Amino acid sequence: MSLANGRSHLAIPGPSIMPDRVLQAMHQPAPNIYEGALVELTAGLVPDLKWVAGTEHHVAMYISNGHGVWEAALANTVAPGEKVLVPSCGRFGHGWAEFATRMGIEVELIDFGKRAPMDLEVVGRALEADKDHKIKAVLATHVDTSSSVLNDIPALRKLIDDLGHPAMLWADCVASMGCDRFEMDAWGVDLAITASQKGLMTPPGMAFIFFSPKAQAAREGMKMVSPHWDWNARAFPQMFYEFFGGTAPTHHLFALREALNMMREEGLESIWKRHDVLARALWAAADVWGQDGPMELNIADPACRSRAVTSLRLESPNATALRDWVSANAGVTLGIGLGMVEMGDPAWHGFFRVGHMGHLNAHGMMGVIGVMEAGLQALQIPHTGGAVAAAAGVIAKG
Amino acid sequence: MSLANGRSHLAIPGPSIMPDRVLQAMHQPAPNIYEGALVELTAGLVPDLKWVAGTEHHVAMYISNGHGVWEAALANTVAPGEKVLVPSCGRFGHGWAEFATRMGIEVELIDFGKRAPMDLEVVGRALEADKDHKIKAVLATHVDTSSSVLNDIPALRKLIDDLGHPAMLWADCVASMGCDRFEMDAWGVDLAITASQKGLMTPPGMAFIFFSPKAQAAREGMKMVSPHWDWNARAFPQMFYEFFGGTAPTHHLFALREALNMMREEGLESIWKRHDVLARALWAAADVWGQDGPMELNIADPACRSRAVTSLRLESPNATALRDWVSANAGVTLGIGLGMVEMGDPAWHGFFRVGHMGHLNAHGMMGVIGVMEAGLQALQIPHTGGAVAAAAGVIAKG
Amino acid sequence: MSLANGRSHLAIPGPSIMPDRVLQAMHQPAPNIYEGALVELTAGLVPDLKWVAGTEHHVAMYISNGHGVWEAALANTVAPGEKVLVPSCGRFGHGWAEFATRMGIEVELIDFGKRAPMDLEVVGRALEADKDHKIKAVLATHVDTSSSVLNDIPALRKLIDDLGHPAMLWADCVASMGCDRFEMDAWGVDLAITASQKGLMTPPGMAFIFFSPKAQAAREGMKMVSPHWDWNARAFPQMFYEFFGGTAPTHHLFALREALNMMREEGLESIWKRHDVLARALWAAADVWGQDGPMELNIADPACRSRAVTSLRLESPNATALRDWVSANAGVTLGIGLGMVEMGDPAWHGFFRVGHMGHLNAHGMMGVIGVMEAGLQALQIPHTGGAVAAAAGVIAKG
Amino acid sequence: MSLANGRSHLAIPGPSIMPDRVLQAMHQPAPNIYEGALVELTAGLVPDLKWVAGTEHHVAMYISNGHGVWEAALANTVAPGEKVLVPSCGRFGHGWAEFATRMGIEVELIDFGKRAPMDLEVVGRALEADKDHKIKAVLATHVDTSSSVLNDIPALRKLIDDLGHPAMLWADCVASMGCDRFEMDAWGVDLAITASQKGLMTPPGMAFIFFSPKAQAAREGMKMVSPHWDWNARAFPQMFYEFFGGTAPTHHLFALREALNMMREEGLESIWKRHDVLARALWAAADVWGQDGPMELNIADPACRSRAVTSLRLESPNATALRDWVSANAGVTLGIGLGMVEMGDPAWHGFFRVGHMGHLNAHGMMGVIGVMEAGLQALQIPHTGGAVAAAAGVIAKG
Repeated sequence: MSLANGRSHLAIPGPSIMPDRVLQAMHQPAPNIYEGALVELTAGLVPDLKWVAGTEHHVAMYISNGHGVWEAALANTVAPGEKVLVPSCGRFGHGWAEFATRMGIEVELIDFGKRAPMDLEVVGRALEADKDHKIKAVLATHVDTSSSVLNDIPALRKLIDDLGHPAMLWADCVASMGCDRFEMDAWGVDLAITASQKGLMTPPGMAFIFFSPKAQAAREGMKMVSPHWDWNARAFPQMFYEFFGGTAPTHHLFALREALNMMREEGLESIWKRHDVLARALWAAADVWGQDGPMELNIADPACRSRAVTSLRLESPNATALRDWVSANAGVTLGIGLGMVEMGDPAWHGFFRVGHMGHLNAHGMMGVIGVMEAGLQALQIPHTGGAVAAAAGVIAKG
Repeated sequence: MSLANGRSHLAIPGPSIMPDRVLQAMHQPAPNIYEGALVELTAGLVPDLKWVAGTEHHVAMYISNGHGVWEAALANTVAPGEKVLVPSCGRFGHGWAEFATRMGIEVELIDFGKRAPMDLEVVGRALEADKDHKIKAVLATHVDTSSSVLNDIPALRKLIDDLGHPAMLWADCVASMGCDRFEMDAWGVDLAITASQKGLMTPPGMAFIFFSPKAQAAREGMKMVSPHWDWNARAFPQMFYEFFGGTAPTHHLFALREALNMMREEGLESIWKRHDVLARALWAAADVWGQDGPMELNIADPACRSRAVTSLRLESPNATALRDWVSANAGVTLGIGLGMVEMGDPAWHGFFRVGHMGHLNAHGMMGVIGVMEAGLQALQIPHTGGAVAAAAGVIAKG
Repeated sequence: MSLANGRSHLAIPGPSIMPDRVLQAMHQPAPNIYEGALVELTAGLVPDLKWVAGTEHHVAMYISNGHGVWEAALANTVAPGEKVLVPSCGRFGHGWAEFATRMGIEVELIDFGKRAPMDLEVVGRALEADKDHKIKAVLATHVDTSSSVLNDIPALRKLIDDLGHPAMLWADCVASMGCDRFEMDAWGVDLAITASQKGLMTPPGMAFIFFSPKAQAAREGMKMVSPHWDWNARAFPQMFYEFFGGTAPTHHLFALREALNMMREEGLESIWKRHDVLARALWAAADVWGQDGPMELNIADPACRSRAVTSLRLESPNATALRDWVSANAGVTLGIGLGMVEMGDPAWHGFFRVGHMGHLNAHGMMGVIGVMEAGLQALQIPHTGGAVAAAAGVIAKG
Repeated sequence: MSLANGRSHLAIPGPSIMPDRVLQAMHQPAPNIYEGALVELTAGLVPDLKWVAGTEHHVAMYISNGHGVWEAALANTVAPGEKVLVPSCGRFGHGWAEFATRMGIEVELIDFGKRAPMDLEVVGRALEADKDHKIKAVLATHVDTSSSVLNDIPALRKLIDDLGHPAMLWADCVASMGCDRFEMDAWGVDLAITASQKGLMTPPGMAFIFFSPKAQAAREGMKMVSPHWDWNARAFPQMFYEFFGGTAPTHHLFALREALNMMREEGLESIWKRHDVLARALWAAADVWGQDGPMELNIADPACRSRAVTSLRLESPNATALRDWVSANAGVTLGIGLGMVEMGDPAWHGFFRVGHMGHLNAHGMMGVIGVMEAGLQALQIPHTGGAVAAAAGVIAKG
């Protein structure tokens, strides 16, 4: 007998739960790709994507995952031999830095560990040390999907401005866009990337670069940009096929259109607020569980936590045991503790993550918290009672 | 902002949650209805349906809802002027009795109210009073979807046998089949009805009569049976079209096939056990909530409660307020309190039901309980704390 | 190697090709059946169904196939012992007559064979002979799905009126509605039945009775009407559940809503015209094929042929051979020659039917005609050339 | 009234018709991307993709369209400043050459026009002239989607071998794979590319590079390969995420799995044969139409025509008029005449293409031919009769 039989709930930090409306939108015949409805649909995505990112500037769409647009962003604006600064707060800053390095770009990486946001003083010192302004861009991670840290992008902008440094400010918003508040133009971000499969509620396979005039100036200064990555045709197409440098990803376009319809209907402020309440419900439960036991939120300061994903610690092998228990007994898939320690390390089984991004409501979140409570009881992992009621209290206040 | 945005959860007592596999199975072209795959598929449903009902005897399939097979069962075996005994424990026994009455059948209805199963002593007295054995069938409701009472069918069988009464024993299993344990042959049931949209996890539109040789003998004794309802062609078809007396319900057959595949994979004992644990989780929560507050399970004795649906009381207008709150704020649809008082009665808003039938797992159930907790807090309805943890404890024990 | 691999084309006379939009509409979670969107959707079907039938009067919806509403129509208005007149022109008139007989109704059946519409003179004589007006209704088949004959309903109305006979005029429009022109009120029809799976482009499982005040008067005169069939609650519901006498067929309602949306978008006159052209394309091909060979349209006079289905003759065993060839080699399923001779009769393999109803366009029809041409060549069945070009000529003229 | 209402038929050269099974496979919840079924499914694609390509060597999968893997192939094996030879026979050879040029690679392009395959003598002279073997690869187009020319890849291999030139032989099989016979290893191809949306019957969004040990040696000799394009991780992954350099395209994987299941069931030889017969049916019709009229196949020699797509000429503005007519009146979308003249050129309306790739059967093809015949008649474009019967004759012979 398994209490997992029923509708499964995916609580990993991406891909998120695909809405029925989105899956339905993909369930249709292939369209004409030369003229007609698809052409209009695609053009109509542009303003809505920019609305999600909070920008009046430009967007280039790619058939890609998030890592692909790490490369695309660099390929358009930073030549081999040029330099970027990467403050890393988990796994994904390191990843972007590795991409840059492999592309022949000079990288200064500052490692802020896995439990805290970037320290702006340290970043400031690095920028000040860059007297001849070799640093072309600061590659910030808005939310690191591994540590679930949330960085203060506006503060970073202010720092760069205060120091009079000309570097572009970039933000990796793969995990955050459509979940945590992000306002590209208001925050002075020059380039932001994201992908389809998290807050945008569309299957993985599309990714996006939003870029400002300053980033475009950098693009114009490049001697060579690979034809596939070149955002000029994509962001400023003369012909329909230029949007995607060849055949358009027809069924993803159907899906994304519907997902953006849903986001328009709900409104960005409402979406952000919903993610905020649901995340705080989980945190409230975790705080209670951990009062007398090993459960611990990876990021201590709530102001520095993402509302899209939460990274937790639960003494090895308890984290893996809990993940396994809720999967086998409750139909919930929790995320592995990515990037905290190496996979072979015995400590690896002491970390896990809960994705709470995209198409998630109070029922889905309370179900996850409820079965975590059941798992803690079943596995006899020490924890304080009252956690689910505390979470319900957050939901009740809204 | 609404915390309801996300995947909705339907917790009404039918239709139940349609599994993705079932919906997918319906999403296909219309088939040939004269030969080929559909013919084999349909014939293959028969043994699996009989397995679900626990019978080696016969099944007739109808394009119908559950009320339709109330009529079909009577039309095949009880002529106008003949008599049936109906012990009613909620709304649906009355409904079957009304059908019989309108068909010209004499009905003796015993009303056991809305909070208790039938009292076998009282039923026994009615049978004993029927000296000349006019009562042709006892129309029992296995589970009454309104009151959520579960009747003890084997005990009723024993009573009839002990009294030496020749009446057939019928069971309305619309709400119970595939949820609460039911074993037609082992329990000596002569005729059982059910429908597709509850434990069978198929959209409403099909219904079934299972019948024993004794019921078939009654059929053979009928002078006139309407051609549509006549189960002879349906249960013993010579040609494919006779299964449904005309065009087969092609897409429902696809759906039902997949639902039965799922049930075969899980196993009946596992299905019943899963329903049992999930129901007891809800009851545990309700017991805690009600320790110091108005929440009350409609059926006091757990042994007399269905594992498919639970009827609750929550002082008007709190029940409706709670239903409205979880719908608007959490994405959960709870069932109205059907059949307890008239809809115009102010007390109507003091009843509700939770459906926990079919494609439901621990995540879905704990999500419902969690948002009910949130709703009680938000609406400041008095309740004792610790309810969700108590429910989790039931899940934890499995 | 098979040239059948690819998208199959179903050319049987029902179920017809299910539109993608309709299948998509069914692919969604079960809804609340007590309140909300489903309630509004269902009420909204009523005016659209009446628009399709050409009536301002009433409609009752049933979870049923077409044969079910044969019984329902009789159960509501004709008591055992009363009499109906059934002019039959194929298989289905006989079927309705058999239903009536088994319900204890007196039936006068006039058999017009399988290749011609009813002869109004003969019908007239039967009505004239009914001096004391025992005939309560004339049960006409608008289109007989087996013979593909189309009867002239307005002329039958005129006949009844001219003779001053008070009998109701009924029409079986299962095969014709939404394909062949039908205007219930303008034509003076008192009761019409149809089902979901042909012109209405919805999977089998719903059926409909449209009825006039005169039919309703007959209903009111009935002493007993079975609760399930009683159209009073269905056509004049006080509560939502009364539309279907219990649980509504949720997913069929989604499907039917979308199919009616499509019909509204196209318009009835356009739908009828499209069916007319497509049918004439097939007839043009068949006329050429048959100039020098065994292919023959079952109904000689084009004015008496349905635009929904065409019955053809092709010397046994050629009809079956052709059906088998296009199925195995071209991905097309043609209909068997239902009701022309008994299935065991060797002549049975000399009849087949082509369904061209519902969601069919020029591509689909020309594909069928094209592969029939290929089959005739492959099987070396004598036929005259130029048939497909003749069909194309009909399409070209539009 | 429009005879286009019904199931649309897409006859463009990609995306091809998506099979119902493929669309259904995409209609499911997002999976866990760290472990479980998706991991196994993905690994299982590798042998099946290699089977389709006819290779025992390697495959790298990309989230991309076909143009993306043009870049990926070059990025893995040809450094800026190195040289490739590109024999072009339509539009797409030019395209690949442009990509190479923009990547800093030296390109020798030989333009064979738009109506003929490459002339091996001319290619041979270019290779002979390359005394110091600067040409690292010959970038051949197996089928050019614009001209529909089919090149003789084995003959090109023999030429290179006979000349003792060490250049790799590459083949662009985007249009041909799964349609025209292609046997990578047997033909001595070192690198082949294709994409998901044509013969592989999967929505656009995935593309593939198949490569031999010789190509891998070239990869190993590269100083720098961009991290995203690097096929080493993709073809030889240590961790699941390396298959796609980050998040896997979950729903495309579901789709591709099902499409490959279908291909396995049918068998490659049967698939190629089916495409061959269907293409010859169209050619037979075009030959007849053009006997006395402007219709003309773009490639005169049948041995040099693709079985996936056919390019046709029909005196401007007739080609566009015919495309528009069948779209508006018959539900068929034909392909524009890509790459023959500039879009602004008045001659542009004299070209069109018919896609006959992937999930296509005799019904679909004969439907296209039938409505083209209707269009020619309706538009009074001169043509000889008997074309559709000629096509049917090809189908009949199989």
